[in-house]
Amino acid sequence: MVFERVAIIGLGLLGGSIGLAVQEFLPGTATTGFDTDAETRARADERKLVARVCETAAEAVRDADLVIFCVPVGAMAAAAAPVAAALKPGALVSDVGSSKQSVARTLSEALPGAAVIPAHPVAGTENSGPDAGFAALFRKRWCIITPPDDADPAQLAALSAFWEALGAKVEVMTADHHDLVLAVTSHLPHLIAYTIVGTASDLEEVTRSEVIKYSAGGFRDFTRIAASDPTMWRDVFLSNREAVLEMLQRFTEDLTALQRAIRDRDGQALFDQFTRTRAIRRSIIEEGQDDARPDFGRSDHNGG
Amino acid sequence: MVFERVAIIGLGLLGGSIGLAVQEFLPGTATTGFDTDAETRARADERKLVARVCETAAEAVRDADLVIFCVPVGAMAAAAAPVAAALKPGALVSDVGSSKQSVARTLSEALPGAAVIPAHPVAGTENSGPDAGFAALFRKRWCIITPPDDADPAQLAALSAFWEALGAKVEVMTADHHDLVLAVTSHLPHLIAYTIVGTASDLEEVTRSEVIKYSAGGFRDFTRIAASDPTMWRDVFLSNREAVLEMLQRFTEDLTALQRAIRDRDGQALFDQFTRTRAIRRSIIEEGQDDARPDFGRSDHNGG
Repeated sequence: MVFERVAIIGLGLLGGSIGLAVQEFLPGTATTGFDTDAETRARADERKLVARVCETAAEAVRDADLVIFCVPVGAMAAAAAPVAAALKPGALVSDVGSSKQSVARTLSEALPGAAVIPAHPVAGTENSGPDAGFAALFRKRWCIITPPDDADPAQLAALSAFWEALGAKVEVMTADHHDLVLAVTSHLPHLIAYTIVGTASDLEEVTRSEVIKYSAGGFRDFTRIAASDPTMWRDVFLSNREAVLEMLQRFTEDLTALQRAIRDRDGQALFDQFTRTRAIRRSIIEEGQDDARPDFGRSDHNGG
Repeated sequence: MVFERVAIIGLGLLGGSIGLAVQEFLPGTATTGFDTDAETRARADERKLVARVCETAAEAVRDADLVIFCVPVGAMAAAAAPVAAALKPGALVSDVGSSKQSVARTLSEALPGAAVIPAHPVAGTENSGPDAGFAALFRKRWCIITPPDDADPAQLAALSAFWEALGAKVEVMTADHHDLVLAVTSHLPHLIAYTIVGTASDLEEVTRSEVIKYSAGGFRDFTRIAASDPTMWRDVFLSNREAVLEMLQRFTEDLTALQRAIRDRDGQALFDQFTRTRAIRRSIIEEGQDDARPDFGRSDHNGG
């Protein structure tokens, strides 16, 4: 089983990248797309993010055997409703949302009777919108698929093959485990980055100009993540609330312990903590999940 | 006034980069260097980090008119003591430490009668040791100089010109203001990164393998900073204790506010916070303090 026609609803960073990647890596597959924003549709058409940009979601999904919702998690219900009547019988519905339990519920409710297998490619940049996508976004990244218990094995296999064709590595797990894992590898990091950038912006003793000038001391790393799409991230925190609060609680306890070590001038405790965090970076690089060059290979070290 | 002979005590990332940069950008300047670690001295000699690697610190500083201590802040006193008797009269003593009030005190006490003007180039990578340095490290980065009230204006001007020759932009401020500014732009980000990497490593519900595989969701960014030199960072937190604890307090308050917004399902508060943090990233890129490419220009988006 292979998907012959893929419809993409939502043509931002993720939707646009899927469209470009399908056209590049699965050239026999037809692509249609829709976005509620008219300017995004126009730009998607100019950039040829999909072969055919449609004026309605219903038109985009007609005849598609795979429909992928690429909208913020909180917009899934509104995006799905208009296509319910237009879905081809037997079509598979999927998505790219960063939280999976709530999306599974939402899509199943909005599309009664449809086959839904949620997915989450763990890939992205800080940019968003129809100009942000590129075909290589998923290369070497993991795509987590969270099939419901009654998922059709053939459809699951076809969805896995689809993502692998786009360059991703596929892992299958339950939606609730996904939500716990991503709470720590993605959601908590974003929450912390948004927080510290806000903290630095609010200081009276240190000017914003100083924060910007001396950001190369470490702060600038956090600003990249904190420049991510606000709507998407609001929805992530609302939809994966329990797991995020749980991870945040652990983080706060650990931060309090380090705070106490600083207050007590406990150099050994600080040294021990700072030593054991090095190994995980090495593993991430060995697994091909980050750039091995110093400072991510930033251009200031490479003549750029 | 121009420095004709520069001695570098400590040949790790910073010391090695200064040595290489002086040889490249100030080719008329003689360079000597010393490191307490014999293997580091041998490697420094192989890489020609300085023109002449010496067997003792006293030998390295003899005849030097600028001596730069490039050792962890907590090692400054031990590094300075052996050179006290060997310093050339009129030589300027400086350093590259990340906290400045404690370094100013330490160097003045260890080198009575010597002229001391501390400095801090806000530049670095996550790597350390004699293999980590490179001549372009300071290019377009700020170097903060914190002269004492009675500093010789000619020496201050010469030190500024020295750093500008290495590609840096120079700013002069008081040591206590420096320590406050860096607490937020560098020290707090490192503390938070070390914490979250520790938190993720300790989870029972999420395996280390999962943390590594799905780190591209945001977590991997933090692991770079958390791979920084543990000794250096232990010393930073011990030597800039008050300012770090103050900034940590502000951060914790802001994090608690976001935690409450998630708990209360207050999407508007989350959206507002996530929106206002975007502007600062734009400013950092406009000011040339970060790579404008998505994801810092990481190699996975550039065919690497």
